[in-house]
Amino acid sequence: MTIPSLRQIAIFCFDDAEELDVVGPWEVLALWTQNFPDDGYRASLVSSDGRAVRCAKGLVLQPHSPAEELPAIDVLVYPGGLGTRPHLRDDARLEWVRAQQRTGTLMTSVCTGALVYAAAGLLRNRPATTHWAAIDELATIDPSISIRPDDRYVDDGDIVTSAGVSAGIDMALHLVDRLAGTDRARATRRGIQYDPKPPV
Amino acid sequence: MTIPSLRQIAIFCFDDAEELDVVGPWEVLALWTQNFPDDGYRASLVSSDGRAVRCAKGLVLQPHSPAEELPAIDVLVYPGGLGTRPHLRDDARLEWVRAQQRTGTLMTSVCTGALVYAAAGLLRNRPATTHWAAIDELATIDPSISIRPDDRYVDDGDIVTSAGVSAGIDMALHLVDRLAGTDRARATRRGIQYDPKPPV
Repeated sequence: MTIPSLRQIAIFCFDDAEELDVVGPWEVLALWTQNFPDDGYRASLVSSDGRAVRCAKGLVLQPHSPAEELPAIDVLVYPGGLGTRPHLRDDARLEWVRAQQRTGTLMTSVCTGALVYAAAGLLRNRPATTHWAAIDELATIDPSISIRPDDRYVDDGDIVTSAGVSAGIDMALHLVDRLAGTDRARATRRGIQYDPKPPV
Repeated sequence: MTIPSLRQIAIFCFDDAEELDVVGPWEVLALWTQNFPDDGYRASLVSSDGRAVRCAKGLVLQPHSPAEELPAIDVLVYPGGLGTRPHLRDDARLEWVRAQQRTGTLMTSVCTGALVYAAAGLLRNRPATTHWAAIDELATIDPSISIRPDDRYVDDGDIVTSAGVSAGIDMALHLVDRLAGTDRARATRRGIQYDPKPPV
């Protein structure tokens, strides 16, 4: 089913990933890529083994494929959630993350996904952000990171990190802007009627 | 597993429901109810038969139960998406919607979920909103509706409708405010770090 000529955006999901960390970027990136197929990107949900995952609040998602079935990952979205914590001590997974970056993948994270990138050594001496409640944890993992707690997302070239949970929507719209231009990003924003007005 | 004394919030999902219409409110309502169990509410995903649904952009979700397994639905969230269109001509489903309202359920909708409520006759001579691209469709289904295209959501007492896709997040935060107070809604907003800054 995979068309190799398409550039692949993989949203990586796992047990105890935070639901909106996954589905916010998914909505944005799926709407863009499906409405504008000529842009040459495809978005899909992947997991390490392709089996269903149970997210942090109990939502069960079925990934489209194991990550390894994609010919290559051009853009990786690493969500946050409590499920990231075991990843910080999972050498095989951290090496997989490093291998993605080495092969030129645009590495992006939502929320505490940044902790995993930090544990893999990707954020050394670089600017990054994460969920407000995980700022100290990020600094502990790698004190060399220049943490930007007030940024919605931090685009540092080959690595883009975002703040907590809902910030993944803003970061994903930025990715559309970066990869396909402002008109596309605006059309995508309008598609999801993203004129947020928090009531409290 | 269902504790009858809890008030039940059911997010109704179905094939071709729009992903963020489902998961935006889910994130908000699950975070609130799980972090504050003493408030006495429980949120779950339901579908008509309990089987997995394939959402509009291809995400596969597994509901927690069939709707009928809940002892009663205190709050119903009806998402939108292209999957709503067959519902408009599905007499059994429309009667189920009417039956929910008759039994005192707080009826809420995201995006084109409002079309289903309109087709069931719930919005006659009442204010409501929907996705900007479905305003004309809503007016055609029931010209007596006082459509409010500029509102993020419309709370008309026992029925609350919201604008497109991402507006479900704002509506869900309003529901937390209404059902459990402003402190809870603010804590929930902070949990998902909902300080949106659309980049385009």
